[in-house]
Amino acid sequence: MKAYKDMNREELLSTQAQLKQEYDRLKSMGISLDMSRGKPGTDQLDLSTPMLDILGSSAAFKGANNMDLRNYGLVDGIDEAKELFAELMECPKDHVMVFGNSSLSIMYDLISKAMVHGICGNIPWCKLDKVKFLCPVPGYDRHFAITESFGIEMINIPLDENGPDMDLVEEYVNGDPAVKGIWNIPKYSNPTGVVYSDETVRRFANLKPAAPDFRIYWDNAYAVHHVFLEDKARILNIVEECEKAGNPDIYYELCSTSKITFPGAGVAALITSPVNAADVKKTLTIQTIGHDKLNQMRHVMFFKNAAGVNAHMEKHAAILRPKFEAVLDCLEKELGGLEIGSWLKPRGGYFIAFETLEGCAKRVVELCKGAGVVMTPAGSTYPYKKDDADTSIRIAPTLQTPEELKKACEVFVLCVKLASVEKYLGN
Amino acid sequence: MKAYKDMNREELLSTQAQLKQEYDRLKSMGISLDMSRGKPGTDQLDLSTPMLDILGSSAAFKGANNMDLRNYGLVDGIDEAKELFAELMECPKDHVMVFGNSSLSIMYDLISKAMVHGICGNIPWCKLDKVKFLCPVPGYDRHFAITESFGIEMINIPLDENGPDMDLVEEYVNGDPAVKGIWNIPKYSNPTGVVYSDETVRRFANLKPAAPDFRIYWDNAYAVHHVFLEDKARILNIVEECEKAGNPDIYYELCSTSKITFPGAGVAALITSPVNAADVKKTLTIQTIGHDKLNQMRHVMFFKNAAGVNAHMEKHAAILRPKFEAVLDCLEKELGGLEIGSWLKPRGGYFIAFETLEGCAKRVVELCKGAGVVMTPAGSTYPYKKDDADTSIRIAPTLQTPEELKKACEVFVLCVKLASVEKYLGN
Repeated sequence: MKAYKDMNREELLSTQAQLKQEYDRLKSMGISLDMSRGKPGTDQLDLSTPMLDILGSSAAFKGANNMDLRNYGLVDGIDEAKELFAELMECPKDHVMVFGNSSLSIMYDLISKAMVHGICGNIPWCKLDKVKFLCPVPGYDRHFAITESFGIEMINIPLDENGPDMDLVEEYVNGDPAVKGIWNIPKYSNPTGVVYSDETVRRFANLKPAAPDFRIYWDNAYAVHHVFLEDKARILNIVEECEKAGNPDIYYELCSTSKITFPGAGVAALITSPVNAADVKKTLTIQTIGHDKLNQMRHVMFFKNAAGVNAHMEKHAAILRPKFEAVLDCLEKELGGLEIGSWLKPRGGYFIAFETLEGCAKRVVELCKGAGVVMTPAGSTYPYKKDDADTSIRIAPTLQTPEELKKACEVFVLCVKLASVEKYLGN
Repeated sequence: MKAYKDMNREELLSTQAQLKQEYDRLKSMGISLDMSRGKPGTDQLDLSTPMLDILGSSAAFKGANNMDLRNYGLVDGIDEAKELFAELMECPKDHVMVFGNSSLSIMYDLISKAMVHGICGNIPWCKLDKVKFLCPVPGYDRHFAITESFGIEMINIPLDENGPDMDLVEEYVNGDPAVKGIWNIPKYSNPTGVVYSDETVRRFANLKPAAPDFRIYWDNAYAVHHVFLEDKARILNIVEECEKAGNPDIYYELCSTSKITFPGAGVAALITSPVNAADVKKTLTIQTIGHDKLNQMRHVMFFKNAAGVNAHMEKHAAILRPKFEAVLDCLEKELGGLEIGSWLKPRGGYFIAFETLEGCAKRVVELCKGAGVVMTPAGSTYPYKKDDADTSIRIAPTLQTPEELKKACEVFVLCVKLASVEKYLGN
């Protein structure tokens, strides 16, 4: 294949004519497919459905502490669920608080608490002139939406295959007391699939923040969400590394079963130092009498232990692998050598990040839409939805079948080609 | 019985001696009982337990809009749950947002949003010098804890058998733009059991607030929680009255199934005007992708409709009635005519409010504790836990059996007598 950049005008025009013909053909097929949403498929949801009637016997209603789990109480979760998350996330049980159905809500509440109540006795951010957050890009739109919603200034930090640019992170965090946090998805990052290197994690743990209430928001959303099992990623344990570095209170780690059991009907947890946990509990006890302990118990009974979760995740991986392969194969086959886009092969998580030529992402998404394929809006992976280079597209290959994905990807690569030819032709 | 206030010193001393002897006898029995917590009993929880495996068939996973309820989405609740709450609370379906397991969390979030984001475009309260809330007293400690936590100044409003002192409410709300809200439990109020009169509700609906972001926080926590079925209370519908009064956006109404199904594993709803709902949704979509839709569906399948809920509440009432009667009979029998305390007979809800002689509440609770009966700490029913007259005690007669309650109440009335004699003796 000849790279588009090496084509002369004539070759580009002839390529464009062919592509347009093909585009019209695909358009006429009335395709309606969606690669925009990081949602599990029905077959994945079926994996956890036996959990829903597992609370059959009344024995299940008594927790470890002999409390009736159907009644009020236990604001930071049932013991059994704390144990399960502690084993799964490899941290001490006293670092675990088990919440409701959403780690996103926990993060929102952490920021909200910091705004109004302050973190560990520090000045509430709403009393400060300026609060800044570092945002590795491309990243998760819902993280950025939280900080934007609270009027926090977001600063882009480039992300490569080892994680965020740590020179820049250190410069900002150690130098500017207005920098109060950084969003991270350290493993199988959304959308790039990046796995933070050991050096990256260590440098995070060894930050010397100018702000006493700076925290690393460590959204370990895909901790056990492997796709290619022969190549499972491990990252260093943030809890241990921060303790070793003498920075035990510098992080909030989040996780949930949203993509293990049910999005919306799962269980989420906050993992943090006992000092931070006690601070969080101060507002938590005002906010609620407790989360859904019966749902916590459902999860405990269904999985029993970390091995149970890991075995379950292999079933998810078996479903997801052909989907990721369908997309990755299509990208490689259709775009390899053309030098009009790049992507990393993720080893896990829910997404594939695609980089177009500069200035092409919006156009690709627009063209896809015209042919019946919905993509995540270009720019969504950047704070304020502003991807200045206009290159970042998130592909979500989980919801549709492998056959549908093959078809959707066929449309996608065609649109990438078309947009790229347009770029080189200057129209 | 001779009223204590009419006894001379000799009679008081002799009464005190008898009471002390009786107190020592009860103390020696090693009683350990609790009338402090508004928790349902195990037999009440059993009523709803069949709900827990009701999601058996996969048909249940498809909602009205054919969306898989096991997956992400529907941030303000499933249609079926909105319909159930709309019928139960007698309001239009488009006024209902169904949330997670806790109406307390909804209220906390409403205040939190008002602090940081502002209500309907108004200035966020954290930017104001002073924010005030009206608090009918005695009231619900967790309401007061929320406003205290956000640094909102709380103003006591006396509550009588028709509701709060509306002259005072109108004076504050219509006159002071710093007054941004008022807490209410309009039906079977916690702890007094008061049911707001029609005039009270109408005067609420017709307030002319000085602050555009003043809201009535209408915590209809006990809307269907009757105890004495021959005497079910009805209150005017706040939604309708506010609309009639040309004040459609002045209220947030809250309700939940915490004391219908399971505290902690129930479903809560916010009922408010479409204008307010759209405003709430702005931050809600940042905070979460959605609440637990499967639990919402469990509730819908279990109850089917409002009649189903009401039939279920009759079973609760049948369990609660003998408990309330045990306490009320004991109070009447032991304290009638002594003029050392007063209480209203509640027709529903979870509590009985008891008023001691001035300056006696703390002492009564202390004496109870000494004899093995835990009461809600005196003062809890007032903002900042400050009951200046020291008269208010909340009795929670739901968790223990009628026999246990009889015993606990025997201790309680004795302690009321002892504290009252002490008062008249001046020691």
